Amino acid sequence: MQDDLRELFFPGSIALVGIPRGLKSGKVFLLGLLDQGFAGPIYLIHPTAADIDGYKAYPSLLNVPGPVDMAIVMSPKETILAVLAECSQKKVKAVILYTSGFSELDSERGRSDEARMKNLARDGGFRILGPNCMGIYSPGSHLAPFPGMPKTMGDLGFLSQSGSLVNFFVNLCSGKGMFFSHVVSYGNSADVGLSDLIEWMARDDHTRLICSYCEGMQDPRRLIAVLKEATSRKPLIMWKVGLTEAGSRAAASHTGSLTGRKDLWTSMFRQFHILDVYDIEEMLDLVMAFYHLRPRVKGRVVIVSGPGGPAVSAADAAERNGLTMASLGEDAVRKLKSMLPPTGTSPANPIDVGLSASFDLRLYQEALDIILDDPGVDAIVMLGGGASTEMSAEYIQGLIASKERSDKHVLAIAYPGFVQIDQEDLLKPLHEHGIPVYPTPERALKAYARMIDYYQYQAGSEKETNLFLKR
Amino acid sequence: MQDDLRELFFPGSIALVGIPRGLKSGKVFLLGLLDQGFAGPIYLIHPTAADIDGYKAYPSLLNVPGPVDMAIVMSPKETILAVLAECSQKKVKAVILYTSGFSELDSERGRSDEARMKNLARDGGFRILGPNCMGIYSPGSHLAPFPGMPKTMGDLGFLSQSGSLVNFFVNLCSGKGMFFSHVVSYGNSADVGLSDLIEWMARDDHTRLICSYCEGMQDPRRLIAVLKEATSRKPLIMWKVGLTEAGSRAAASHTGSLTGRKDLWTSMFRQFHILDVYDIEEMLDLVMAFYHLRPRVKGRVVIVSGPGGPAVSAADAAERNGLTMASLGEDAVRKLKSMLPPTGTSPANPIDVGLSASFDLRLYQEALDIILDDPGVDAIVMLGGGASTEMSAEYIQGLIASKERSDKHVLAIAYPGFVQIDQEDLLKPLHEHGIPVYPTPERALKAYARMIDYYQYQAGSEKETNLFLKR
Repeated sequence: MQDDLRELFFPGSIALVGIPRGLKSGKVFLLGLLDQGFAGPIYLIHPTAADIDGYKAYPSLLNVPGPVDMAIVMSPKETILAVLAECSQKKVKAVILYTSGFSELDSERGRSDEARMKNLARDGGFRILGPNCMGIYSPGSHLAPFPGMPKTMGDLGFLSQSGSLVNFFVNLCSGKGMFFSHVVSYGNSADVGLSDLIEWMARDDHTRLICSYCEGMQDPRRLIAVLKEATSRKPLIMWKVGLTEAGSRAAASHTGSLTGRKDLWTSMFRQFHILDVYDIEEMLDLVMAFYHLRPRVKGRVVIVSGPGGPAVSAADAAERNGLTMASLGEDAVRKLKSMLPPTGTSPANPIDVGLSASFDLRLYQEALDIILDDPGVDAIVMLGGGASTEMSAEYIQGLIASKERSDKHVLAIAYPGFVQIDQEDLLKPLHEHGIPVYPTPERALKAYARMIDYYQYQAGSEKETNLFLKR
Repeated sequence: MQDDLRELFFPGSIALVGIPRGLKSGKVFLLGLLDQGFAGPIYLIHPTAADIDGYKAYPSLLNVPGPVDMAIVMSPKETILAVLAECSQKKVKAVILYTSGFSELDSERGRSDEARMKNLARDGGFRILGPNCMGIYSPGSHLAPFPGMPKTMGDLGFLSQSGSLVNFFVNLCSGKGMFFSHVVSYGNSADVGLSDLIEWMARDDHTRLICSYCEGMQDPRRLIAVLKEATSRKPLIMWKVGLTEAGSRAAASHTGSLTGRKDLWTSMFRQFHILDVYDIEEMLDLVMAFYHLRPRVKGRVVIVSGPGGPAVSAADAAERNGLTMASLGEDAVRKLKSMLPPTGTSPANPIDVGLSASFDLRLYQEALDIILDDPGVDAIVMLGGGASTEMSAEYIQGLIASKERSDKHVLAIAYPGFVQIDQEDLLKPLHEHGIPVYPTPERALKAYARMIDYYQYQAGSEKETNLFLKR
């Protein structure tokens, strides 16, 4: 299977079949490849144009002089079967089929066309991704379905049945210092489907963590086998939609998907410890924890906060999510007591360093250092910031410096309405140093608890895991 | 009770007792009053300084020439009882006690001092807010405990046992076009407590909606009576913390609060249809729905989206939250079918207008107009945006224009990673025209469902309600 899908991720040459002349939506594929600096030849195929945007165009795949590993096809849907026959003749290895209008239209014709596509692919020895998909973003191979995507490689894999979510989620993650190994938008899955892709990502050494937005499933037996193997190798975060009646109908019109029975999915989530999420924020929250924090099986948490109210709510959240609020050692308590102002603060966990800490950053910094030295602590959630943008930048540098000399987890909160800390640019260095940033401690602690729970399960299951420790 | 607390919200003159000379934290009270343009006399009281920042200072309250309605007291804690005796002598009507270090330190002394404060207030005919509080933000009275708070009045009331949350939440709301009647930070509640404040806000004609962050409770019998009355008059959103062991301990060190039994709170929430929330984001989400959307007892929803994936998840969210996905009338379906491109779109609810709508905004606009004309629809959730900032601004103006000619609810989604729409400034006009903006459809639909559920309950209960319709 790794060989079978290889050309989808590592093509040496690409043909863009049916590329539009003007600035129509299919043009993004050319713009994406040029933007990423794809190194191999790119052939443009257009039935009548001699050149497009100054690049030579060929009337058909069969006129291309060299070999074509991958064809990205955006021709009108009536011509697709003929184009696929040409792919076969040209010995193309992988087809990304952008054209839509097949099974998602709920038509007999759409479904039978997709069955034919699958047969053509099998007979021609190539694989098809789609139809109705955006294909591959893979910065290491200089592949991207949109211009402006990051050129940095990371070790996060993303499988998305939706094309737009590829763009949104990659944008979102790169703003938080998280980059990708491979991302796949796979649409209607006429040929390559969820099971194939999870299996491939699970075996891919460059992918440490897989997340997935998925609507449909095909062969439950195969999916179960694949999930069993994949989850023994790396964490799998899954945003499975279409588990209500309304959602299931919507998935059918979006990618022609059969969404599968809810009880089957629920039991798969439980059995394989798949981290299921219900929206993009929850997916991002979990991805941040797994991406930035090294594996650890204990999660004794300390909360440090300037504002007192959010700290009380954070303590509730820790307990509600099954985390242990760390009991600080005598030494730490003594030091905190002597360091903190006597009123408006609290040296017990959650540690309230008082609102004046925004003016006197030393209070945050010393509290953090004292707690990092306490052997009974695994993680510190820091809710703070400075009284000005400059002071917030200093606060952030302080967190990074302290975190760098420790193996404990540090999570930062950029609280809503805390004006001097709530700026993406300011927060970027935190992500770059393995400190995930959440808007609220409630969200941070929920994601953190699930991560710890996952690693405890993995440690308990005594299976060989493929988690290579990043930090 | 309205008369009793009146001077807390409408003082004619204020003394700042114990105001610091330098830029220490107590200085925010002076800066706040000056910034709001408080019209009455402000007297500064300092034991030794003749003037502070160029303003005359008096050695004691008793030296002030005119009457003093309100004293904001930030003197050292050892002197507080003496200062309160002077308040009594001076016939001060309301005291805001900023000084902390009493019951929240878990000391016998702190608790007995608070009992004494209460007695002094009762005997002296004045009321005390605090200790350990920031007091009142009330733009109509030109009162604010921080500089830089909005000068615009609104009809949202906020009761916050935490002082910092006042600042955070007011900031957050004003960025979303929501302004306040009165906001109270009440700290340890030695005298004026949650019940007094809810009762006052419920009877205040300028407050249409109350939200609350609360840690403690005192007299459960009185609280129940107050909640019964208040919730028959207006919606009450409550972020009650300290309902876990860890949270309860944290609340005790923060405001010396007894948090109360979880089962009692749960039954009050249910009995009085109090909208309980668990973090600042959930509170904001609900406040946005109640603030911006006019009361309605039906909530048949249509989802319109450019990206297809989030629309499928939105359909799940609608059903999970008990909302009805509207069935569009024949007329609307026919118009949508003839208007939308034949592929990459779906004319059924959720309506997928396709990703090319970001380039061709007419698709969003016409779909919205068609649905607004359908009598079987109550609310439209719009998930979209333009391909550039300018186009997104145009998209937003289109939503506003259409919404203005309809009485249906319109909710907008600024989806994470959808780069051209995710800008606070760009979104501001939406809030100003009664269109709440949420980051995800899942959050929008959860809040919306709770709002509809609330109005259905109110309509069913046949009680007289005091919801004055804003739009």
